[in-house]
Amino acid sequence: MSINQTQIKVIRKLLRSGATARVARLLQRIHPADVAELFSELSPPETKEFVDVLFTSRRAGATLRELPDGILQNVLEMISDAQLAVMLNGLPPDDALMFLNLVPEDRVAAVQEQLDPEQAFEIERLLRYPEGSAGSLMTPNVLTMKENRTAEDALNELRARGAELEAIFYLYVVDDAGRLTGVIPLRKLILSPQQVELRALMVRDPISANVRDDQEIVASLVTKYNWLSLPISDDDGVLVGVVTVDDVIDVIHEEATEDFYHLAGLDEEDRVFSPVMQSVKKRLGWTVFNLGTAFLAALVIGVFERTIEELVALAVFMPVVAGLGGNSGSQSLTVVVRGIALGELEFSSGLRAILKESTVGLLVGVVAGVLTATVVFLWKGNEWLALVLFLSMLMNMALGALVGASIPLILKAFKLDPALGSHIIVTAITDSFGFFSFLGLATLMFSLIGG
Amino acid sequence: MSINQTQIKVIRKLLRSGATARVARLLQRIHPADVAELFSELSPPETKEFVDVLFTSRRAGATLRELPDGILQNVLEMISDAQLAVMLNGLPPDDALMFLNLVPEDRVAAVQEQLDPEQAFEIERLLRYPEGSAGSLMTPNVLTMKENRTAEDALNELRARGAELEAIFYLYVVDDAGRLTGVIPLRKLILSPQQVELRALMVRDPISANVRDDQEIVASLVTKYNWLSLPISDDDGVLVGVVTVDDVIDVIHEEATEDFYHLAGLDEEDRVFSPVMQSVKKRLGWTVFNLGTAFLAALVIGVFERTIEELVALAVFMPVVAGLGGNSGSQSLTVVVRGIALGELEFSSGLRAILKESTVGLLVGVVAGVLTATVVFLWKGNEWLALVLFLSMLMNMALGALVGASIPLILKAFKLDPALGSHIIVTAITDSFGFFSFLGLATLMFSLIGG
Repeated sequence: MSINQTQIKVIRKLLRSGATARVARLLQRIHPADVAELFSELSPPETKEFVDVLFTSRRAGATLRELPDGILQNVLEMISDAQLAVMLNGLPPDDALMFLNLVPEDRVAAVQEQLDPEQAFEIERLLRYPEGSAGSLMTPNVLTMKENRTAEDALNELRARGAELEAIFYLYVVDDAGRLTGVIPLRKLILSPQQVELRALMVRDPISANVRDDQEIVASLVTKYNWLSLPISDDDGVLVGVVTVDDVIDVIHEEATEDFYHLAGLDEEDRVFSPVMQSVKKRLGWTVFNLGTAFLAALVIGVFERTIEELVALAVFMPVVAGLGGNSGSQSLTVVVRGIALGELEFSSGLRAILKESTVGLLVGVVAGVLTATVVFLWKGNEWLALVLFLSMLMNMALGALVGASIPLILKAFKLDPALGSHIIVTAITDSFGFFSFLGLATLMFSLIGG
Repeated sequence: MSINQTQIKVIRKLLRSGATARVARLLQRIHPADVAELFSELSPPETKEFVDVLFTSRRAGATLRELPDGILQNVLEMISDAQLAVMLNGLPPDDALMFLNLVPEDRVAAVQEQLDPEQAFEIERLLRYPEGSAGSLMTPNVLTMKENRTAEDALNELRARGAELEAIFYLYVVDDAGRLTGVIPLRKLILSPQQVELRALMVRDPISANVRDDQEIVASLVTKYNWLSLPISDDDGVLVGVVTVDDVIDVIHEEATEDFYHLAGLDEEDRVFSPVMQSVKKRLGWTVFNLGTAFLAALVIGVFERTIEELVALAVFMPVVAGLGGNSGSQSLTVVVRGIALGELEFSSGLRAILKESTVGLLVGVVAGVLTATVVFLWKGNEWLALVLFLSMLMNMALGALVGASIPLILKAFKLDPALGSHIIVTAITDSFGFFSFLGLATLMFSLIGG
């Protein structure tokens, strides 16, 4: 299936000639995820035409939910409140909510008034959960049964309700109060003798997440146990929804992007094709912060202006000390941030990680320091300069590793995002300390030689 | 379920007192993924004891496959070839292969000789596919049927073969030559009238991956279409296996780790708790490379030693120009590498991305340049120095963005990993060019003022 350039050309031509019925027929043979890819190729008038085709062929919901947020926002502006309400009525509540989150506040109220009362109620329920929580990810349509029913009952119920259910990989067993007591994989339900009671088939006390748990917890549970969906309970243990593995995959991508972006000092909404002025605005904050840290390093150098006047070669090797220290810090930062994200590193083992990274930084620093000192001695013939470089490099590389490994763990202890200990902060420290140790030792050296 | 510190203590106590039967009983109530977590808490003799319990209770395979590679390698050394062969016979071939990949070459042959012939044959088949290919990820146990069979036939077959099948989310329909012609979700099979022929239920010409496709392609298809498994075909279109969504999740984590690590100049095997000397060895390569780039920057400064002698304040502001340029480059690098990984950026739109990032870099550079020039003018009262800083900063930040955005796209064009355009390479360029433009302009300024 998929979609190629020739097919795209055909569809654009049909759209321009107004042959919407033929476009609708073509679309039936293409997966919504592929149809969504068409959008980035269409001009605004073609987009308008195309959206109308999607609505008349009732494929708007399934297709539009595959669009990236940026394009989707533009498309939503093209359709009326009534159209939007019709589309949202046909979607699972969690998908409908995803659309509403992209619509301006005042429009949300207008659209909600035109929704089916049941759908409006379900969406309202989901709206109580903060963005990024298990509750905001889940679909409330779950197949549940009491434990005294049989496998046959369950399969019959499934046949009756199948169309409205998004996730039917597991049957969840609940008690009279709706509390989760067991889970049965659909596969086991089919493979078992049909008259067996569910209580005999179910795995008892399955792991669930709380509605308010962070989506990262949901993702790590699904990753760890290889499940297709995770049940979500409220504070009373009542089953209120499930998060499916496809949503978990989106969360994993999103969380990785967040870490990449935070490490580089970027805002998550600053994407490769965001409008230029939006990207500029988003980057100014961290850039001004970075200017501050760069001036701090400049101040440190300023203190030693007279030392540099005495030996300008010092200015030549400043970037070697600072650069290698910064790189050592970035490496430890990356190893620890990734270790936390993958669950390889618990808080209890944090000290061990810091110690290990610092040792590695020190040892790599010794090697880099020896190499540098040798080259500089051969180049400049100054054994004092070589010694100062050696000492300041190993100190700065060990410090870089120590700081790079510590910052994410400290941030985690304060329940902040570990990746916020970005490269900018680590290099601010290795720059300033690098210049201080290098130029400070050089000053000391002059006073020793001079005296 | 899960496992907590108290439970861990109980199990360790039972192990030390030799009450292995009681440990075995406890383990039946714990998920293998949780049992695996125990390992990091056990001493070597406890581990040996524990592995024996896992083998006698036939839970070794399911539990050990959840272990991180580092711990698993140690455990595999504790068990005999015969034990290992028994365990591998009970696992799907793809999982068995995962174990064999962690065993030294000479031991592989010894173990393979003791495997069931069927299992040895299946593993041999998988061994033909390179690591990281769709073939190496797939399980060859797939449920397939001809299109003239009925839904009832399919469910009966499923009941008969269910136990040996790992992935039964879809029924794959094949022609007489075994070529994939359609797919039917298990759910549809259950919900349909039982006498309907499969040809009437199936979605025709489903998307599949080739056995030699990279695992990234598999992951992006499953992410895009929200599937639970992806069929894998050979060059003749014959269905040879499926990759399931849980393996795809592992691939997504792995690929993100690879990008994080390559950006920071790290080898993937250099993990948070790798042995110190292994990490040191792995980091030396990039560190020596980084030393080379740092000396390049030093050489650039060396050219301008006489200019610095004339105005030592230049040395003070060198890190501002270099640091901000490097940060601008890192930001564009991250945006583009992540854009490629998430499929937001095709090669055809690469030029647009480079242009956009360069514009953003230039505009942010103008703001940062103006701020810097103002501060420096107020601090040093030197309008020429302020002007030189302004110009070199906006040039270096625009260049950083240009280089940061271009390198990953160029690497991709040469079929290399886009993230290999690591921070080290980008900052090498922004450091050298930053010093060159700043000190070069300053030299020009002196000759103008002087003349």
